[in-house]
Amino acid sequence: MTNPITSTLDAGQQKIAGDALQGTVVDLIDLSLIAKQAHWNVIGKNFRSVHLALDELVTAARDFTDEAAERATAIGVSPDGRSETVSATAGTKGFGTGWTKDDEVTAAVVDNLAAVVDRLRGRIADTEAADPVTQDLLIAITARLEQLHWMWQAQV
Amino acid sequence: MTNPITSTLDAGQQKIAGDALQGTVVDLIDLSLIAKQAHWNVIGKNFRSVHLALDELVTAARDFTDEAAERATAIGVSPDGRSETVSATAGTKGFGTGWTKDDEVTAAVVDNLAAVVDRLRGRIADTEAADPVTQDLLIAITARLEQLHWMWQAQV
Amino acid sequence: MTNPITSTLDAGQQKIAGDALQGTVVDLIDLSLIAKQAHWNVIGKNFRSVHLALDELVTAARDFTDEAAERATAIGVSPDGRSETVSATAGTKGFGTGWTKDDEVTAAVVDNLAAVVDRLRGRIADTEAADPVTQDLLIAITARLEQLHWMWQAQV
Amino acid sequence: MTNPITSTLDAGQQKIAGDALQGTVVDLIDLSLIAKQAHWNVIGKNFRSVHLALDELVTAARDFTDEAAERATAIGVSPDGRSETVSATAGTKGFGTGWTKDDEVTAAVVDNLAAVVDRLRGRIADTEAADPVTQDLLIAITARLEQLHWMWQAQV
Amino acid sequence: MTNPITSTLDAGQQKIAGDALQGTVVDLIDLSLIAKQAHWNVIGKNFRSVHLALDELVTAARDFTDEAAERATAIGVSPDGRSETVSATAGTKGFGTGWTKDDEVTAAVVDNLAAVVDRLRGRIADTEAADPVTQDLLIAITARLEQLHWMWQAQV
Amino acid sequence: MTNPITSTLDAGQQKIAGDALQGTVVDLIDLSLIAKQAHWNVIGKNFRSVHLALDELVTAARDFTDEAAERATAIGVSPDGRSETVSATAGTKGFGTGWTKDDEVTAAVVDNLAAVVDRLRGRIADTEAADPVTQDLLIAITARLEQLHWMWQAQV
Amino acid sequence: MTNPITSTLDAGQQKIAGDALQGTVVDLIDLSLIAKQAHWNVIGKNFRSVHLALDELVTAARDFTDEAAERATAIGVSPDGRSETVSATAGTKGFGTGWTKDDEVTAAVVDNLAAVVDRLRGRIADTEAADPVTQDLLIAITARLEQLHWMWQAQV
Amino acid sequence: MTNPITSTLDAGQQKIAGDALQGTVVDLIDLSLIAKQAHWNVIGKNFRSVHLALDELVTAARDFTDEAAERATAIGVSPDGRSETVSATAGTKGFGTGWTKDDEVTAAVVDNLAAVVDRLRGRIADTEAADPVTQDLLIAITARLEQLHWMWQAQV
Amino acid sequence: MTNPITSTLDAGQQKIAGDALQGTVVDLIDLSLIAKQAHWNVIGKNFRSVHLALDELVTAARDFTDEAAERATAIGVSPDGRSETVSATAGTKGFGTGWTKDDEVTAAVVDNLAAVVDRLRGRIADTEAADPVTQDLLIAITARLEQLHWMWQAQV
Amino acid sequence: MTNPITSTLDAGQQKIAGDALQGTVVDLIDLSLIAKQAHWNVIGKNFRSVHLALDELVTAARDFTDEAAERATAIGVSPDGRSETVSATAGTKGFGTGWTKDDEVTAAVVDNLAAVVDRLRGRIADTEAADPVTQDLLIAITARLEQLHWMWQAQV
Amino acid sequence: MTNPITSTLDAGQQKIAGDALQGTVVDLIDLSLIAKQAHWNVIGKNFRSVHLALDELVTAARDFTDEAAERATAIGVSPDGRSETVSATAGTKGFGTGWTKDDEVTAAVVDNLAAVVDRLRGRIADTEAADPVTQDLLIAITARLEQLHWMWQAQV
Amino acid sequence: MTNPITSTLDAGQQKIAGDALQGTVVDLIDLSLIAKQAHWNVIGKNFRSVHLALDELVTAARDFTDEAAERATAIGVSPDGRSETVSATAGTKGFGTGWTKDDEVTAAVVDNLAAVVDRLRGRIADTEAADPVTQDLLIAITARLEQLHWMWQAQV
Repeated sequence: MTNPITSTLDAGQQKIAGDALQGTVVDLIDLSLIAKQAHWNVIGKNFRSVHLALDELVTAARDFTDEAAERATAIGVSPDGRSETVSATAGTKGFGTGWTKDDEVTAAVVDNLAAVVDRLRGRIADTEAADPVTQDLLIAITARLEQLHWMWQAQV
Repeated sequence: MTNPITSTLDAGQQKIAGDALQGTVVDLIDLSLIAKQAHWNVIGKNFRSVHLALDELVTAARDFTDEAAERATAIGVSPDGRSETVSATAGTKGFGTGWTKDDEVTAAVVDNLAAVVDRLRGRIADTEAADPVTQDLLIAITARLEQLHWMWQAQV
Repeated sequence: MTNPITSTLDAGQQKIAGDALQGTVVDLIDLSLIAKQAHWNVIGKNFRSVHLALDELVTAARDFTDEAAERATAIGVSPDGRSETVSATAGTKGFGTGWTKDDEVTAAVVDNLAAVVDRLRGRIADTEAADPVTQDLLIAITARLEQLHWMWQAQV
Repeated sequence: MTNPITSTLDAGQQKIAGDALQGTVVDLIDLSLIAKQAHWNVIGKNFRSVHLALDELVTAARDFTDEAAERATAIGVSPDGRSETVSATAGTKGFGTGWTKDDEVTAAVVDNLAAVVDRLRGRIADTEAADPVTQDLLIAITARLEQLHWMWQAQV
Repeated sequence: MTNPITSTLDAGQQKIAGDALQGTVVDLIDLSLIAKQAHWNVIGKNFRSVHLALDELVTAARDFTDEAAERATAIGVSPDGRSETVSATAGTKGFGTGWTKDDEVTAAVVDNLAAVVDRLRGRIADTEAADPVTQDLLIAITARLEQLHWMWQAQV
Repeated sequence: MTNPITSTLDAGQQKIAGDALQGTVVDLIDLSLIAKQAHWNVIGKNFRSVHLALDELVTAARDFTDEAAERATAIGVSPDGRSETVSATAGTKGFGTGWTKDDEVTAAVVDNLAAVVDRLRGRIADTEAADPVTQDLLIAITARLEQLHWMWQAQV
Repeated sequence: MTNPITSTLDAGQQKIAGDALQGTVVDLIDLSLIAKQAHWNVIGKNFRSVHLALDELVTAARDFTDEAAERATAIGVSPDGRSETVSATAGTKGFGTGWTKDDEVTAAVVDNLAAVVDRLRGRIADTEAADPVTQDLLIAITARLEQLHWMWQAQV
Repeated sequence: MTNPITSTLDAGQQKIAGDALQGTVVDLIDLSLIAKQAHWNVIGKNFRSVHLALDELVTAARDFTDEAAERATAIGVSPDGRSETVSATAGTKGFGTGWTKDDEVTAAVVDNLAAVVDRLRGRIADTEAADPVTQDLLIAITARLEQLHWMWQAQV
Repeated sequence: MTNPITSTLDAGQQKIAGDALQGTVVDLIDLSLIAKQAHWNVIGKNFRSVHLALDELVTAARDFTDEAAERATAIGVSPDGRSETVSATAGTKGFGTGWTKDDEVTAAVVDNLAAVVDRLRGRIADTEAADPVTQDLLIAITARLEQLHWMWQAQV
Repeated sequence: MTNPITSTLDAGQQKIAGDALQGTVVDLIDLSLIAKQAHWNVIGKNFRSVHLALDELVTAARDFTDEAAERATAIGVSPDGRSETVSATAGTKGFGTGWTKDDEVTAAVVDNLAAVVDRLRGRIADTEAADPVTQDLLIAITARLEQLHWMWQAQV
Repeated sequence: MTNPITSTLDAGQQKIAGDALQGTVVDLIDLSLIAKQAHWNVIGKNFRSVHLALDELVTAARDFTDEAAERATAIGVSPDGRSETVSATAGTKGFGTGWTKDDEVTAAVVDNLAAVVDRLRGRIADTEAADPVTQDLLIAITARLEQLHWMWQAQV
Repeated sequence: MTNPITSTLDAGQQKIAGDALQGTVVDLIDLSLIAKQAHWNVIGKNFRSVHLALDELVTAARDFTDEAAERATAIGVSPDGRSETVSATAGTKGFGTGWTKDDEVTAAVVDNLAAVVDRLRGRIADTEAADPVTQDLLIAITARLEQLHWMWQAQV
């Protein structure tokens, strides 16, 4: 069918902003699943701190997923956040199976956050000309994830 | 390494309850991703009602995911809720791509809920002898999902 | 018309669970009306305590009415909580007219609670095999009403 | 026994105001039961909107029932809100059995609200001279029910 | 000085409404002081119920005092609620000194409420023609005080 | 089309009450816009007090606008609160352009409140026979606006 | 008088940013009045959803009106949001009179949102060099209105 | 009757502490009535600030009244806070009649606070040996009233 | 005296359920006292995490104590939770005196939780036939304590 | 080991304050257990009032236990609140077994409060010179317990 | 040691953004201390308004201090907000000693805000190319401080 | 100018209490800045616990700063909390620059708390005779800081 949601962007702008948002949606969903996986499987002396901090990361990832996906819809682009799409296209670093020591968890979270932030930095540059409204959201997401990156790295 | 979390269940009971919970975790994560996908892509006259109702489903699926995964840890079984595991093993019916009409969304939600409830019913039977504590959680999840199943089916 | 709400129960299970729930709905509605009637008509030195305690009973009865009725819908059974059905089929002990002394109110509440609990105990046994999800709700209702029964009887 | 609650009204005023309030109590209880019945049994595309709106009606009916009944007690008149009294004397239009389509539900709610409002209008006139305090409550109830009547009729 | 606050009422209306409000202010302040006095000095088996119920009465009396005084200001009449004015002009029945048995407290509260309500009934009649806005407030105060009168009398 | 919303009032009553409410809606919308205009443009030593007090006036005007408009709908009269209708028919005194000294703001607010109250007093008289429910709302609006009138005038 | 509020912007920047903000204030006030008008006059099967969604739009429009107007004051520009200015200069599409069917309401809201967003897009470009602080606010307003535009268009 | 409330203090200590508390109760009640009187009758440019600040004083005076009176009961002394006792024995400076300019109000509040604080300082000294628990409450009351004294004096 | 609280259970069922509940009450009280003792005496690098986690354990133990004791009363059995009964009959592992290192605290908490859970598992089996309502409560307590057991063991 | 927590007090002061606090901790824990025991076992006409008032006593006792124990730690003294220490050293009057009439409960609570307050009075004197910070806490505890003592005694 | 916190910025970008943030941290801390100093020392007729408005300024300054400092850490730059650094390097205008008249306070606040905003404007320009995420935060801080600047200047 | 705020203390008492409070204000401000500095710069495995605990310390220091400064104003002494005064006169131990390991942070916090408490102990002694109201505040501050001192020392 023809696109039921019109956009204030032209086709080229819409393509750039839409790609940036779709990539962000997928990265953030996977980040939230990785953080939950770590939340359940962490062991070690710092279990409680890490367990709680992971839920803050889950909340951030989930909230920004929703904002990014709804920004896509607002410019007439249908987002795709299904598990098969996430597992096939996310730019995260993944997470191992089974019980995991707290310092291994911390290292894995730092790596995953760094990977997601790195891709967001590129998208901020990509969308500057195409859509400053989308760029503004990507800046906000990056600001929060870089803050979390510091907090996790400070524990290493 | 040897299992760092001991269990009050014997190995056979632990296996039965652990399998039931791992299957539930995966089904519920996928259900939450499907509901979010629908939440973003629904169009049609009932957009607002369906959009809002889908977030109630997301909340239920997420909360029960956490309870099921943490019940698994409580009996010494490491849960796996990573995107690749979810996309490979979930017993849901999936969801299509792109903008979707509200009545198609409703039908898809009813189908997915029915599939998840059907598997939960089997697990309630399986765990009765092995672990009444796990069974009690599965009953609670089923009660809520059957309620949601009615509410979605009532809209068909 | 054919039943618009499907059920995970077979016809026999559905009949047993549905009857148990319909009876519970009717008993609880009447219990809530009796408690309100007493709430307005009580007089005596303990007026304030009894007046307030009756509203706690009203709240419990109303909340469980809704849960029981929506459990019926969840298994595909249409509940009936209309005044004519309540007055014709409720298994309560009723309540007299006009201003009523506080100790008479207490005695009447204890009798009504005992009658409703007695019927619930039978339904817990009836639904054990047919539907453990429905049974779990009936257990929860009974637990609360037996607690209230103790609190009212302690005042005799 | 002699009436334990004295009144600032004379016997004639008390009779007029008491009758108006007793009729209102009975109508509102039945309205709340009808709204709950519809809340559980509604089906159709607008299920969610209607289901939620019915609980707002239940809340309004229950709150005003309490105010009307306690206004009766305040003027020394014992109210009667038992199920047998409600089913025998309420001036509502009733509600059918079984699953009900959303537009039939809407029509039935409009009819019931119109019937209750009509009787309230008469009681506002009746109580003007007898007790302006009672009249003021009846005006407040009417204002809210006429608002709900508009909202339901707007959906037809 | 000339009155700094103008009024939508003419001088005659202002006098009637102002007198009604000034009398109400004084009665309600004294009622609040009597209720606090009783709150501190009550003894007896029903101490706790009476002690708590008296604070509800204090709250009602204080809130309505403020509304009545600010209604006076709104029509350009300066209210007087100073202790010497209250002790000299209040139409209450007073309260004795020292520790007081709970049933004596209850009787005194009923008497004081009856006296204040009786005067309010007269003011409702007085202000009907002069100022329906003031009358509406007096009706609201009377409605609440008559409700409290019933609740206290029900304990006798 | 024929009026989709029926009324308990006859045509004459409906006309009187509808006119009173439509006039009130327009006056209150303009009052809220004037108060916001003043909220932004006030300067002077009392800036903060006046700035904050104006938002209380905005809130009151907006809430009563909604109540008056929905009372119109409840009696089957479509309200009109569009900017062109407001600027053409409101009975307010208006407000100048640009930065305004705090005492000029206070004077302008007092004048506007006086004008709106004056019209409301007339409508209270007009609707007494036609519809006591509408009259009761107009009394409530007047009570609050006369209170605000006093508070603003007290600052002159 | 000389401008009492100084600005960190030079005269040219102030003119550009001030014009952008004044236009935004006027558009948003009219949008809020249109949304309220629709809120009261909508009829049809989706009455409740549309009625509620319109109040979310009102809230957004009112909040952003205040932010835009206070941003104007912050750069030393007196905003003008009076009804006559709004009706004369707003760039909205307006709204018809009388009861309006829900799908006509939806179409009108989509049109008005599109018109306001279109003008905001121009102002984002205009203010980029003149004042990035003002631009940032316009981006935030646009982000929210484009989200609402999607939600309303999804219902068409 | 013999004192129904026993005390951990001997008769001399009880007399000293009881007198200090009775005096405090009476002073604080009168302070609260004076503050309310001023709250209603203040006029002038600072109306709003003074009007609001007076209610903070009322709240402080009322809360400490209750604490002082209940401290008296806790040591077996019946407090007396009736209007006739207050008007006869309070050590406050009183307040005039009618509308009062804001700076006169401020001066009167400062004087009344100074008078009450002065008496409290004496009671702190008096109770040091007799009952440190009572003294601790008087210190807390003084701390708050001296803070309020500063705030009011800062406005002179 | 004869038992003032009647039971829906027969004597044998009452004995089984009552014994299970009395044992649970005692175990949980001691668990709460042990957790508080550890809360105050823990030292070491993880002080803060352990200190906070212990209060979550205290809260759980206290809430379930109340539920278990009130379930006993609901079946007509008087519970005994006095310190001498607790110290004489609790099935916990105890806790040492003086300042305690965080890892020793963790080990002691794991041991005490394991001991209490082990006894609860036996009581779940014991009460299945005697009273499913009591069994349901014991399952809920076990579910929470096994979750806490995992969390504490994960820190070892 | 050497004491890991240093103190601003010298050894003699620390001994005096530490003994006072340890005694207070033990008394308050036992008071909380006695109050809970009574909360569950009370019967009689005043059941509800007594049942609720006992939980207020439990809350007070628990909160002050924590404050006293953490004051001990703050001065470098390890507190001991284990059940065996409580049952061996508490200075309370104890409580009997089984269901207990409400007036017997009241008498027992008054006796226990009197005993605990009596010991606290001695500790206030003991700690005055040694540590005014500790004394200040003991004064606060005494103030609240003497208030509760009055409230319970007022019911005798 | 080598920097433990890595950055997504290169060294030059990090230097520019880090300097901008460090300067902002120091300015905002001093602004918060100046505002508190004024909060305590203000006297004059507008004491209350100024006293309250200063705490809003304190809150804004404190919240943005934290955001700026944590943005510095997020890009791997250690912030320095110690009193000696603040007093040596802040770009504020300072505040005098002793009691200060309200209009002098207002003037001093306006001057300090203007100085801080002026430096922020420079930093917005400096960081545009280096780090848009940092720039976005500086824009948000400037927006709020320019709003406060208007509010304070409006009082002059 | 002559002191605009009068005092209930004589000049000697005022000097003693004023000096004690001024010293406390300065110490607490510096303590809050040190704690924030540590909050931003801490690194190490316990980052999260230490980071969070430092904000609790900041909150305590800020709240008590305000209470101490406003106690100074209440006795007619102008407090000085400007950055230059703080850096010149605070009796704290300071804090180093740059990223700091968690155990170094803990040690520094313990040292700073000990230094501040030591000075407070002296001021408690100094103010006993001069002003018991000021002393009572210093006791409250000391009680909280000694509690925090224990909590931080327990982590060493």
